[in-house]
Order: sequence, then structure tokens, then C-alpha cells
Amino acid sequence: MSRVVLATRNPGKITELRRILAEADDKTELIGLEEYPEIGDIPETGLTFAENALIKAHAVAQATGLPAVADDSGLCVDALNGMPGVFSARWSGTHGDDKANLALLLAQISDVPEVHRSAHFTCAAALVLPTGEERVAEGVITGEIIRTPRGTGGFGYDPIFLPTGETRTTAEMPPAAKDATSHRGRAFRALVPMIHTLLPS
Amino acid sequence: MSRVVLATRNPGKITELRRILAEADDKTELIGLEEYPEIGDIPETGLTFAENALIKAHAVAQATGLPAVADDSGLCVDALNGMPGVFSARWSGTHGDDKANLALLLAQISDVPEVHRSAHFTCAAALVLPTGEERVAEGVITGEIIRTPRGTGGFGYDPIFLPTGETRTTAEMPPAAKDATSHRGRAFRALVPMIHTLLPS
Repeated sequence: MSRVVLATRNPGKITELRRILAEADDKTELIGLEEYPEIGDIPETGLTFAENALIKAHAVAQATGLPAVADDSGLCVDALNGMPGVFSARWSGTHGDDKANLALLLAQISDVPEVHRSAHFTCAAALVLPTGEERVAEGVITGEIIRTPRGTGGFGYDPIFLPTGETRTTAEMPPAAKDATSHRGRAFRALVPMIHTLLPS
Repeated sequence: MSRVVLATRNPGKITELRRILAEADDKTELIGLEEYPEIGDIPETGLTFAENALIKAHAVAQATGLPAVADDSGLCVDALNGMPGVFSARWSGTHGDDKANLALLLAQISDVPEVHRSAHFTCAAALVLPTGEERVAEGVITGEIIRTPRGTGGFGYDPIFLPTGETRTTAEMPPAAKDATSHRGRAFRALVPMIHTLLPS
């Protein structure tokens, strides 16, 4: 069994990543960052999801001496040229205020007609070894932004994201259904074979 | 003397447009929209500056039976993929709240290092005749976003915009110096010959 540190303190991401990896990978043991309280906030200064995921995984692999996996993900709204993008978690100016971020986004595009409300979630999943060796996998789910939040599952912008061909927002889907098509599910399932290649048990 | 209606109720834009056109064009008389209180808000549903400027000028030309000129302009921040862009005046979710828009933008890019804080202002200037004939000219000024507002002139994002090669923000520049290089000055000076061609005195 390989041991890997999960390089995030976002409770929504921790829940989903543990669930996705438990389903996709029975050869890797995930260690939470709560075991390393001495690791402080890691500034996400990258301009792409992959850059930020790598920044976080490198910092944690270096601090712990263990392989680290990290996620950077966000909502890309076409009418906003792909924003909030890497700024998704701090869109309203305060990091991690899901409600304020979602309310601001809805207000910004309130005049945008249905035909232009397309969007996608992107996730970059990174694996970094203490040696510095690195891998990144990306996953995407397309959909559109609705006008009124629906559902209590998930986190972030889930209540206003309706995947293409779905009648439920990602906050209304049961966890297994969400993971099967979500950006995070796709990215981390693509990362699993890379984990096994770099970390033979 | 041709008579043309200025299709905006934004006080900052009215001041600048009257100044720029008074300097560049002595053959056109500008009529303010305050003479047409019956014309309500015109929804800016376009996804580009040119679309929105044309929407406003068409609405006012149709309502007044006179040629109309309109401006749509905004700040395009490279780290935000060109946003706030056409959403500049409603970035914080409330239309026209300059202070809230500027504060939100600064907070969103607070982690973005100096080397990635480049931006430009764009202005689309539109002329539309009551017959529906239309022209558009665009102007751009490049620069960067500073971290602390400076200056009391101009409006909107001027206090945080430092033009390339300048030591003053556009809010610190005297009006004539600002107009000489601003996106709005460039766009409307380019529109003047089109006005004269379409509206021979």
C-alpha cells in the first residue's frame, strides 16, 4: 500500500477526493493534511489550474517527505472569458466564501441570455514525489449556469451548474452520479494509473 | 452644424465625451440624453464593446429620430482573461458602483504578482443614423493595475490604471493629457471623420 498526502484543506474537496479515490484505487492510502498542522497556507499564484495544483503538491511533498496529490479546479463561464477560473474560490475577494462567490457570479451575468450561459468545470489533479517528479491529469464537465441555486449537495458553484444533458444541478445529483461525470472524478481517475506507475507497491 | 444625440447617462462619460468631441469636432452639436427623459434604461446584452455601443446608439437613434453616438468601454485585465471587459460597470453585481467594482477587482487579483498585472482599457464608439446606418471605431490604451488607488480625476477604474510609460494613473493625469492617449479619446477621434462623412453639414 503506497501512502500519499492529500494536499488540500478544503472540506468539500477532501470529501470528494477520498470518495473518488476510494472507488478508483485500492492500492493507495490517503493521509489528510490535518496530520501536518505545521504546513501553512500555500499561495496559489499560478495562472492555470495545472500550475496551482503543482504548486500545492510540490509544497506538501517537500514539507512531508511523502508523495502528495493536489487538486486545483474551478468554474469557467464562457460569457466571462473562462472566469472565475483559477479565481473561483476567491471570486468575491474573500477566499472560500462559497455563498458570496456564487451570488456575485449570478449578479454579474444576470443580463446574459440563456443561449450564452454555457460553462464548464475544470479540475487539474497533480501528483508530486519528494524527488520532485510530477504528473498532472485534467478533467472537464460541460454545462450551463442557471439563475436560481438548486440542491444542497457538493460545494462551491454546484447549485447553479447544470451539466449538459442533465436535469439536475451537480448539487442535486447523488455523490456516485456526480463523481461518474464530474471534472474531479475524471481528473483523479486519470491520475490513478500515474500514481501506480510512479509508486509501485 | 449637424445635431447628434449622446446616448449615455453616465456622468463620467458625458464629461469626457463632450470634452473630446469639442476638441476634435467643431461641426457637430451634441445633444444630451437629459432632453429625452422618456428613454429608459437600455439593457446591454452584447458580449463585445462594439455590440453594446451599437445597441445603445440604435435604441437612441430610433427613439429620437436623430443620429446618435454611444460609447461602450471597459477594463480588460490579462490575468482575468480580459475581464471585467463588458461587465466593467457591473462587476460587483450592482450597475455603476465604481467604488465596489474597483475594490472587488483589487481583491480578486491581490495574489497576482506585478509581472502579470497588465491590462488595457478598450472603448467602442458607435454612430447610428435614424435610417439604421452604423459605424464603429475602437480605441485602446495599455497599462497595468496597481495595488492602491491614486488620484481623484476620471472615474471607474482610473485610480488603479497606470498607462504604459506613465508615472501617473489616469485619475492623476490632467484631462487634456488623459484624452490625448485614452481609449475614449482614440475611439472618438477615429469616429469624427465617419460622422462628417455620414452627416455632411
